[in-house]
Amino acid sequence: MTTSALTKVSEQLCFGGKQIRFSHHSAVLNCQMQFSVFLPPQAEAAKVPALYWLSGLTCTDENFSSKAGAQRVAAELGLALIMPDTSPRGEGVPDDANGAYDFGLGAGFYVNATEPPFAEHYQMYDYIAAELPALLEAELPISDKRAISGHSMGGHGALVIGLRNAERYRSISAFSPICNPINCAWGIKALTGFLGEDKAHWQQYDASVLLAAKGSALPILVDQGLADNFYPAQLQTEALVNAANSAGVAAEIRLHEGYDHSYYFIASFIEQHLRFHAQHLVLTNG
Amino acid sequence: MTTSALTKVSEQLCFGGKQIRFSHHSAVLNCQMQFSVFLPPQAEAAKVPALYWLSGLTCTDENFSSKAGAQRVAAELGLALIMPDTSPRGEGVPDDANGAYDFGLGAGFYVNATEPPFAEHYQMYDYIAAELPALLEAELPISDKRAISGHSMGGHGALVIGLRNAERYRSISAFSPICNPINCAWGIKALTGFLGEDKAHWQQYDASVLLAAKGSALPILVDQGLADNFYPAQLQTEALVNAANSAGVAAEIRLHEGYDHSYYFIASFIEQHLRFHAQHLVLTNG
Repeated sequence: MTTSALTKVSEQLCFGGKQIRFSHHSAVLNCQMQFSVFLPPQAEAAKVPALYWLSGLTCTDENFSSKAGAQRVAAELGLALIMPDTSPRGEGVPDDANGAYDFGLGAGFYVNATEPPFAEHYQMYDYIAAELPALLEAELPISDKRAISGHSMGGHGALVIGLRNAERYRSISAFSPICNPINCAWGIKALTGFLGEDKAHWQQYDASVLLAAKGSALPILVDQGLADNFYPAQLQTEALVNAANSAGVAAEIRLHEGYDHSYYFIASFIEQHLRFHAQHLVLTNG
Repeated sequence: MTTSALTKVSEQLCFGGKQIRFSHHSAVLNCQMQFSVFLPPQAEAAKVPALYWLSGLTCTDENFSSKAGAQRVAAELGLALIMPDTSPRGEGVPDDANGAYDFGLGAGFYVNATEPPFAEHYQMYDYIAAELPALLEAELPISDKRAISGHSMGGHGALVIGLRNAERYRSISAFSPICNPINCAWGIKALTGFLGEDKAHWQQYDASVLLAAKGSALPILVDQGLADNFYPAQLQTEALVNAANSAGVAAEIRLHEGYDHSYYFIASFIEQHLRFHAQHLVLTNG
């Protein structure tokens, strides 16, 4: 794999740590990308474990960094936060034919596309699971102790990438994830566009299918608000619950009265997610 | 004073409290306005004290609510957060002739304008100090125990309104305030535009002038980052320090190595500001 040099776009002090935005050329995505990293104060002295956060539809690397309030707890726990963009970017990257918010730019769905014209750039699965960690671990004080989390489309990405790469992560969590994309409108549109009509190819990107089929070697925490406009139709949380039950997996899937799909929900519970991941990243050896 | 009915635009659960956006007709500003309120869980049972937060140039009521992470601590302490807009709004409201970011819409500077065409709407001082609290205390579970804070232009507004209305507030704080607007480019432009050329009229809106002349009956906390692009030229923090010293006021004015003008700075220290205000709002009687 070719790693590209990182160009620092900005750096800001936050809770005694560094909130940094980088630009780099992604060989996997075949375009220039930006991502954000929070390095806690502990990274001055030694490599720190990292939580990869995958954002939802329409987001960039900046939504989580500015709205979740995660840096406070990450600085306490000594966790790096890695915040990638949600799709390939740039003039040469094809978008939805109608510029829809739910497919194409800002909506890569964390899959490796096989359909033209998307396959040339939309390889977000490999970017998140392989290229980005290799780059970061080579160039920044970040260890190979990794956890993965995300929101909505990014919750789907976190579950799928974590379940399929258990050897590369210690724990998985998600807020309001798209749990069963082969059975919801967002997922069907995206999987058809990126992978084509053959639904057999879709199943590798469906967290409920994966969990039911193979269980999980990793601990899982999921939070879902019951006042979420996209629940249950797009999110299908019950499919994930059923998959966990059928596989005998003790996933913690919590439903919260009154909370919606927004960052106010994420902010309210992100501390619990960071402490969950820290148990597996910081407090365990190996 | 005429109070107008409040129209709820949105309500979202956050840390067990309610993040609400209201619309109302402001008689003082002569236009329709939006503002945001965070009601902590304690407001279900009794009236709660309130921190008024004044935002900076280009902001609306949403910057602080989405980026500062203040709701977590406000929910713990039982403080309401009141987040007004930064200027009158709407089609009939005049803006800077060139649409500049630092005067007019999004840049009302918390003064009562006397110059045409601005005087008809730009009465932000009276809106913040009188109309909005009266409205909120009549219609929401918010008590008349008030504190005031803000950022940049809003830090200027908080200091000026707090110093001139000590009987109405318990404590004042600010992040990166414009401390001496009669002597910086932002202030000179705004005060000329809203108040005219006679600088004698400007002094009532200059925190350093006010503090030097009359001291402060209220406790003051100010945080300023030393990597702030606008420090010292626009912010003139030293003028406030000198004013406090000459008046014999024990204002706490802290300079922080490495922090900039952004919400990452505010997020890093907002908890300390909320606990400072809570000491005077919650823990004291009367």
